[in-house]
Amino acid sequence: MDAARAPNGWPLDDRGPAYGDGLFETVLLRDGEPRLWAEHLARLARGCRVLGIPLPTLAELERPLGEAGEGLAVLKLILTRGSGGRGYLPPAEPEPRLRWQLLPFSPAAERWEAGVRVRHCRLRLGLQPALAGLKHLNRLENVLARAEWSDADTAEGLLCDSEGCLVEATCMNLFWRHDGRLETPRLDRCGVAGTLREALLARLPIHEVDARPETLGSVEALWLGNSVQGLWPVIRLDDARGRALRHWTITPDHRALQAEAHDLLGHPLPA
Amino acid sequence: MDAARAPNGWPLDDRGPAYGDGLFETVLLRDGEPRLWAEHLARLARGCRVLGIPLPTLAELERPLGEAGEGLAVLKLILTRGSGGRGYLPPAEPEPRLRWQLLPFSPAAERWEAGVRVRHCRLRLGLQPALAGLKHLNRLENVLARAEWSDADTAEGLLCDSEGCLVEATCMNLFWRHDGRLETPRLDRCGVAGTLREALLARLPIHEVDARPETLGSVEALWLGNSVQGLWPVIRLDDARGRALRHWTITPDHRALQAEAHDLLGHPLPA
Repeated sequence: MDAARAPNGWPLDDRGPAYGDGLFETVLLRDGEPRLWAEHLARLARGCRVLGIPLPTLAELERPLGEAGEGLAVLKLILTRGSGGRGYLPPAEPEPRLRWQLLPFSPAAERWEAGVRVRHCRLRLGLQPALAGLKHLNRLENVLARAEWSDADTAEGLLCDSEGCLVEATCMNLFWRHDGRLETPRLDRCGVAGTLREALLARLPIHEVDARPETLGSVEALWLGNSVQGLWPVIRLDDARGRALRHWTITPDHRALQAEAHDLLGHPLPA
Repeated sequence: MDAARAPNGWPLDDRGPAYGDGLFETVLLRDGEPRLWAEHLARLARGCRVLGIPLPTLAELERPLGEAGEGLAVLKLILTRGSGGRGYLPPAEPEPRLRWQLLPFSPAAERWEAGVRVRHCRLRLGLQPALAGLKHLNRLENVLARAEWSDADTAEGLLCDSEGCLVEATCMNLFWRHDGRLETPRLDRCGVAGTLREALLARLPIHEVDARPETLGSVEALWLGNSVQGLWPVIRLDDARGRALRHWTITPDHRALQAEAHDLLGHPLPA
């Protein structure tokens, strides 16, 4: 790993900043212990296989953990293909570059309790099966979608793909109960397969489905979640102009899935 | 512009490496003079408008020109949204970061003369009208497509979108003559609108069309081009496994469009 030219960042010829040619993981640390670490490592390894980037050793990936203090923090790992000449052709023998940040973190605990308001985004995700599920560094769609609203009352935005199917929120996965079944959108054509979603799929009978936004009009409960914030019940869904489409009341069913998710993350449950 | 933390690169918290949240331009310099400079500036300005990134001043963008020597070079400009906290939400008042590289350059002149062999790529480009035409930093599709072949005999790969329409090559635009008409694919749903393409569209009656790969079976001539390499006549088209689909003989018509393109770039014409 070459740290000489940019010990705290990226040299000019790195393919990460040049093309987004790399991957990242955002990991919840509790007293220095990573949560869902196996799931984060598995996604990173899958991304490396797809992109043809050598996976760092476990020792390299775990080095930052020793620097985390007590309490909650987020570890952001960024892995790029490393330096390369001009042009898209990847180097035959890439020397990947791993960088990391340790960031203080407090989850939005009031959202666990009170639930959140979300809206539909106008932006549609392009279909790209070759990259679907990966947490790669090409995130302009998420940036544009997140820029669609700025009011603090709206916690997240829901995204459909270019064919109109529900996929995810800008930085969270979706879960709902529909006719008694727990469901989450399939992520084989676009979207990021979150590690909390992976862990919940392994633990519970959650069905991966193709669904359109109209489905949300008849679901009994809707949640958003990721591996750092935990699970938020949705109490209001707006259209892309901020007009209410639907409201939900928080039920014991909402709390039950939250309990599973928060058990995985070590987050408390609302009283 | 903050250069202190990474004078020759990008700091860890820059949104370019984090999300590909930025733009680039690759400019041909001849004795320090940029070619198609107005087109490069126009595309960069359009990208800044779409992404909400403040456009640097002309003086900032032209500063590298003074460092270029005689002969040919390529100036690569990369502009990112600058530093930001964790999360996709763009900072309300971004301080963009501009970096550049001056690279020695020699065009592949033998390809002007002899023409090139190209192949279809397997990868399909996702549809993303919000970003179409821009030279943004989310280029993993191009990287994956370019990794589909490694033999030096294949000069470029042709890309279709997820609905099967022809778009571009991995780092070049496409032009062909069909029933006497000069045509190029429309780029309103994906792809990069090259500056050479822009300049040729302004100069000649070239029609922007929706076309499927089967069209290439009946075109009289096919070219690939960009603002640094100039225009390559295509003499052989292969499928994604490298098997020949079609051959062309280079005609005076090929040379005529090359003459227009090379006049714009200052490149010589084949004898």
